[in-house]
Amino acid sequence: VIELETRILAKNDALAARNRAWFAGREMLALNLVSSPGAGKTTLLERTIRDFAGELAISVLEGDQATDLDRDRIRAAGAPAIQLNTGTGCHLEADMVARGLEQLRPAFGSVLLIENVGNLVCPAMFDLGERAKIVVLSVTEGDDKPVKYPHMFAAAKLMLINKIDLLPHVDFGVERAIDHARRINPGIEAMYLSARSGEGLAAWYDWLRHEAKTTRSTLTG
Amino acid sequence: VIELETRILAKNDALAARNRAWFAGREMLALNLVSSPGAGKTTLLERTIRDFAGELAISVLEGDQATDLDRDRIRAAGAPAIQLNTGTGCHLEADMVARGLEQLRPAFGSVLLIENVGNLVCPAMFDLGERAKIVVLSVTEGDDKPVKYPHMFAAAKLMLINKIDLLPHVDFGVERAIDHARRINPGIEAMYLSARSGEGLAAWYDWLRHEAKTTRSTLTG
Repeated sequence: VIELETRILAKNDALAARNRAWFAGREMLALNLVSSPGAGKTTLLERTIRDFAGELAISVLEGDQATDLDRDRIRAAGAPAIQLNTGTGCHLEADMVARGLEQLRPAFGSVLLIENVGNLVCPAMFDLGERAKIVVLSVTEGDDKPVKYPHMFAAAKLMLINKIDLLPHVDFGVERAIDHARRINPGIEAMYLSARSGEGLAAWYDWLRHEAKTTRSTLTG
Repeated sequence: VIELETRILAKNDALAARNRAWFAGREMLALNLVSSPGAGKTTLLERTIRDFAGELAISVLEGDQATDLDRDRIRAAGAPAIQLNTGTGCHLEADMVARGLEQLRPAFGSVLLIENVGNLVCPAMFDLGERAKIVVLSVTEGDDKPVKYPHMFAAAKLMLINKIDLLPHVDFGVERAIDHARRINPGIEAMYLSARSGEGLAAWYDWLRHEAKTTRSTLTG
């Protein structure tokens, strides 16, 4: 089983490297958003797309086991989107992303946001060719999640703590969650926000703006 | 020795796949020109660059063991060019091309012509990520070259028989050369021309125009 898993991951890594080179050629920023189901990724994307209208060209690959619902929400928010259905699969793989890109044909110099299947385990292992993974953790899930799902928080560059409008109603320590995440991944960046109320979005937007600006066509190293 | 060679080629193939994906992301056409030394590749490039001025954005990676002479000739013809020196090496490799691309930064949707080191043997084995290899055979070399250097003619999509202005002075059968090439590679396309006199260039230009038009951002398959 371990050997088969290693082979599957090696094949995925090779295809992810191909995606990464394609993004580099196209001078694009690609980000992979991961979270538990219902952490608010789609709502965050909708709001981000609306608020960046006219500033950044954003397109989206939507991962779900089934349905086109999220693709339709993203399109209604004003961004090109393609739905990838994984069937029994619990995560996106690099070859699915490659096929999605051929349909999506994102613009040169644009930003691609990949919304992975809601799952805090499997997507951690599968590189899609993204520059960075962003893990979204909602305050309703508990501040212990980083230590209980260490692989995902170790793989992420940025943690977005979402739904802070609900903090008065739940037992969730923002600083405790950040401490837990940094015990696993000392370098992880962290922000807290509410995609619904809009609180805290400015810092996330600054982060995205900065990453988009520093995209280069690097092939080596 | 065979095992080491296999490992070197496997590593090169992986880097070539990365270059190919980068070209696809950038929607570029990349061609790899190979020949014996002195078959007229640089002269053909100079003329092609001048004749396509204003129509196709062409840039060049120049491979030579030593000197920047060809790069300077290409720049004088009006195209951006970077020289790659291979030292003791008899061919370009994919990682050299990657480093060259970072310096060259060819335009989106443009055409990259890679002039390999003059050599009818080694460059045949090394994929650089190009769409196609073009082998240039000059009539002064003899029409038996395709059967004597079969790997190169098997690897090429197109054979350009060059220096046909010298045909009256040498014993070279154009049809014989094409027959020899097709014995090795039944699908090879063939044209004859003189980069110096300009005879036959129109067919080569049509071929290049057609290839440039059919470039797509394909990632899969």
